[in-house]
Amino acid sequence: MKLTQIRNATLTLEYAGKRFLIDPMLAEKEAWPGFVGNARPHLRNPMVDLPVTVAELLTVDAVILTHTHTDHWDEAAQQLIPKEMMIYTQNEQDAALVKAQGFVNVRVLEDKNRFIDGLTIYKTDGQHGSNDLYADPVLGNLLGDACGLVFVHPDEKTLYIAGDTVWVKPYVRSLQRFQPEIVVLNTGNAVNDLYGPIIMGKEDTLRTLQILPAATIVTSHMEAINHCLLTRAELREFTLEKGIEDRVLIPADGESLFL
Amino acid sequence: MKLTQIRNATLTLEYAGKRFLIDPMLAEKEAWPGFVGNARPHLRNPMVDLPVTVAELLTVDAVILTHTHTDHWDEAAQQLIPKEMMIYTQNEQDAALVKAQGFVNVRVLEDKNRFIDGLTIYKTDGQHGSNDLYADPVLGNLLGDACGLVFVHPDEKTLYIAGDTVWVKPYVRSLQRFQPEIVVLNTGNAVNDLYGPIIMGKEDTLRTLQILPAATIVTSHMEAINHCLLTRAELREFTLEKGIEDRVLIPADGESLFL
Repeated sequence: MKLTQIRNATLTLEYAGKRFLIDPMLAEKEAWPGFVGNARPHLRNPMVDLPVTVAELLTVDAVILTHTHTDHWDEAAQQLIPKEMMIYTQNEQDAALVKAQGFVNVRVLEDKNRFIDGLTIYKTDGQHGSNDLYADPVLGNLLGDACGLVFVHPDEKTLYIAGDTVWVKPYVRSLQRFQPEIVVLNTGNAVNDLYGPIIMGKEDTLRTLQILPAATIVTSHMEAINHCLLTRAELREFTLEKGIEDRVLIPADGESLFL
Repeated sequence: MKLTQIRNATLTLEYAGKRFLIDPMLAEKEAWPGFVGNARPHLRNPMVDLPVTVAELLTVDAVILTHTHTDHWDEAAQQLIPKEMMIYTQNEQDAALVKAQGFVNVRVLEDKNRFIDGLTIYKTDGQHGSNDLYADPVLGNLLGDACGLVFVHPDEKTLYIAGDTVWVKPYVRSLQRFQPEIVVLNTGNAVNDLYGPIIMGKEDTLRTLQILPAATIVTSHMEAINHCLLTRAELREFTLEKGIEDRVLIPADGESLFL
């Protein structure tokens, strides 16, 4: 497979002969205000430029949205992606939203999705914030649901893109069930003022390797959005301290990995 | 329905003309040592007697096990329950265990289980401990999985027995999806020394009513096992403080509720 870190959680993936664009956020640098209710609300998003042209991102077979928060599916993406593009969403609610935005080929992922030529994509569950956050009706609904994706094909390594989740039991169960060789973790450590981290951070790389010692981790969702506090440099330092630097790949924006 | 609190999480339920025994722990008082790794390891379990004879508990159509921890399915239950009893388990692993114990009618619950005469039982997910606990491979496996149960019938109120879980997003999603009128919560506040609560506590009654203000909560899994720290008296005091005493029923062992 060829996995390219574009910016924030936006990835392109060539897998089993197919090409996917995942969680496109396509705005120009500083196009929209920073998220509030967390650190650095004065910084505008995205904090950095796209490393490639939008045109290069649109030569794909389908777009997959793990959820529809602005930093995964922004107004620019809604405008720039052709309305005929096949868009896969995690649930009916997101599909209804995307259809209302004018897209005509929208499908809801099932738990297991078999494609022709042996590709299977599984949808996994996560939790986009702490347990206490999901006891707050307003923030619980705002953070809502976000899925993960597991790509399986006989000629490819198994790839688990965990999505926007903190460390919860469903994440552990996905590691145990699918035994992925490659795990993409959104390790930007986005932090809500009231309820703490809403995605993963540096410690979760180590924890993942304690459960799957042979896995390779690829980090994403870093240094592009105002509430993401963990830098690649800090993460790199952590992996060196823990002796896991060979198992944790930290691609720059625009960098491709052949896995 | 008629719901009877037996002891710890053991319940009998008459619902839509059927009678279920849930999570039977049938040992005599102090028959086995206290759980270790948490408060009061010197106290033996169960801490109290059964309030009825075992014979009265066996006049049921089926037994349902939310999981197979000793305080929900003990050696006494395995010995005293006839081997022909229909036993429903949450997953294949628990079914294999129960079959190995000699039971010959064992079925694994699906996510949705439709019975004749309009009864449907849904299986729900939970998390039997904190997120950090599930990052510890040993304790994560020890606490493992435990399901919840939702009973639905046109002539009955919808009943959600949440099972051994802390407050996590899947619990909130079950409340939102099924809109249960009755919610059974295991509020004994069992606490692991390293990773904190492994079931619910008093605050979770209030949080539940903030999401479903019209629901009635029935509390269980209290004052029978050494690691359960919340007493009925403390819970009662909390509900009075918060003005939710009419919405939180705290049955004594042996007490039946007609709901």
